[in-house]
Amino acid sequence: MKKTTQLKQLGEFGLIERLRSKLNTHSPRIKKGIGDDSAVFSTHPNKLQLTSTDALIETIHFDLKTISPIQLGHKAIAVNISDIAAMGGTPYLALISLAFPSSTSTKFIDKLYSGFQTICDSNKIELVGGDTVASPKHLFINVCIVGEAFKDRVFYRTGAKPGDQIFVTGNLGDSAMGLKILREKIKKSGSIKHKNTLVKKHLEPIPRVKESSLLARSKLKITSMIDISDGLTQDLGHLSTENNLGANLYEDRLPASKALLNVCFQKKYNPIDWILQGGEDYELLFTIKPEDVKKLEKLFLKANVFVSHIGEITKSPKKIILITGNGSKVPLRVATGFNHFK
Amino acid sequence: MKKTTQLKQLGEFGLIERLRSKLNTHSPRIKKGIGDDSAVFSTHPNKLQLTSTDALIETIHFDLKTISPIQLGHKAIAVNISDIAAMGGTPYLALISLAFPSSTSTKFIDKLYSGFQTICDSNKIELVGGDTVASPKHLFINVCIVGEAFKDRVFYRTGAKPGDQIFVTGNLGDSAMGLKILREKIKKSGSIKHKNTLVKKHLEPIPRVKESSLLARSKLKITSMIDISDGLTQDLGHLSTENNLGANLYEDRLPASKALLNVCFQKKYNPIDWILQGGEDYELLFTIKPEDVKKLEKLFLKANVFVSHIGEITKSPKKIILITGNGSKVPLRVATGFNHFK
Repeated sequence: MKKTTQLKQLGEFGLIERLRSKLNTHSPRIKKGIGDDSAVFSTHPNKLQLTSTDALIETIHFDLKTISPIQLGHKAIAVNISDIAAMGGTPYLALISLAFPSSTSTKFIDKLYSGFQTICDSNKIELVGGDTVASPKHLFINVCIVGEAFKDRVFYRTGAKPGDQIFVTGNLGDSAMGLKILREKIKKSGSIKHKNTLVKKHLEPIPRVKESSLLARSKLKITSMIDISDGLTQDLGHLSTENNLGANLYEDRLPASKALLNVCFQKKYNPIDWILQGGEDYELLFTIKPEDVKKLEKLFLKANVFVSHIGEITKSPKKIILITGNGSKVPLRVATGFNHFK
Repeated sequence: MKKTTQLKQLGEFGLIERLRSKLNTHSPRIKKGIGDDSAVFSTHPNKLQLTSTDALIETIHFDLKTISPIQLGHKAIAVNISDIAAMGGTPYLALISLAFPSSTSTKFIDKLYSGFQTICDSNKIELVGGDTVASPKHLFINVCIVGEAFKDRVFYRTGAKPGDQIFVTGNLGDSAMGLKILREKIKKSGSIKHKNTLVKKHLEPIPRVKESSLLARSKLKITSMIDISDGLTQDLGHLSTENNLGANLYEDRLPASKALLNVCFQKKYNPIDWILQGGEDYELLFTIKPEDVKKLEKLFLKANVFVSHIGEITKSPKKIILITGNGSKVPLRVATGFNHFK
């Protein structure tokens, strides 16, 4: 019953031509997009350039049974945007390498590209190139992204000092629970609406571009920033341990969605485990000088952006302490995030 | 007898730390290399930026039985350098994504990185980032490269006009014959020295950075340029057919190595097939205004760089004609290069 064209019928050059016709560049700074040996673009003299790359591999990062090609296209770009946002930058250009098994249908490819295009369009990112090759078995997607930031407004992982206050955007743990729901097909308990919300957070993450831009355009004394991809504890470890510092986290300030709390309640999970260790949140975790906390809260309130003040950087080397509701201190083990090779 | 550490013992963070300690950046323009969400770098205000990406997939692009990890590391970077050189640019930054099967040995990874590092060092390219993930079965390498060129010295594929003269660097067909020797283990005939030369051209291509730089720094009227990755006919098709033009090629001017001619003689192959259709030469193919031909030849002679004047652009739409030694005209079929999905 399979009537769609397969890649082996279309051929490599047919595919490139098909994609090229759909992907037009708009920005005058892109002198050449797809169709030459390299893409050519201009940069602003008073900005720094940012670049990052992320690969998504079938069976490791995604399962084609649970993610649609449109969602996959969205996610591959979203996780890269998040890396630029985590530096205070704005992405403007992307290159996509794809390795397809030859049985891939052109319908699948069209939908995948539709996913790429939609998120790129809404973020004004130009798709300027890539590589399209065969794969012996699994689908590989690699995105390389380029962005820019004002010279004095690039936020690194290093830079936090004791006393700096820790903030995080959005809610934590939703994506990890969404993945669990997908994998284990938790059907019998919990509301369908809540489960759908969590699954969507996993499959269609929204990179925090607006929040990053608010911080970059402000004069707030941001001292470090990272996006949460490996889980709060793990990524906070990157911010605090780089300079041999530690952190206190206040349990009752950690942000969790109603959806996560509902499913945890139904399944008798402890939400704190999901909040602290859940990966792929793509929320921004950052530190700010204590004197700027009020200004930050005002700025984000005005912009209607949700942010939580969850703790502070301490002098205790490499110790992340969770302070519970009753005041007891629980040391957290860092490096509990996702490890690809174990 | 396997005593080397495997990736699953080292773990993802162990691997990243191992690589990070080896890959230091040197250029002051790199504000941040490996170790943050994005790499951060500055650009020259009077230059255009170039970027390109190329993926190499195990079993499709390379066979670990016939290429060493050092050669593979070299080649993955070399093919990307070639894309920047083909625009008249100089590469300065690279990001590498790797998807390793978990059984990969750290010894293999160290040698692969040694291959990356050697070619990057000799080309002053900084390795500023990447992604290191697991692969279910095959090794996947993606390189994204950034380079720059002076604003008025970027050479595109489009731009050639009828009467423009066609040049190519180096010899053609060696790499394709090298691949055939590797695959078919041609052992019985031909000199070992010549076969090794051809195999080396396939496994360790030298991107034509020096030649590209000579052209970019000159004031010669270069009208188009491409690197030959799919074979001369195919890639000349890109230069000539973009503007609905054609080309004449003179058979007796096409450059071939002694090694190729020797093996073709032994095996009774027609060398012209290898010269016209052999892929992965990574030589530069370019067009120049007829009045600058003499200056070009003088410049390259002085720099001791081998270049061949092989033909000219014609008005005949999409026709590439081979003019043989006796003056007969043979139309060539374009699109005979490598097609990934057939």
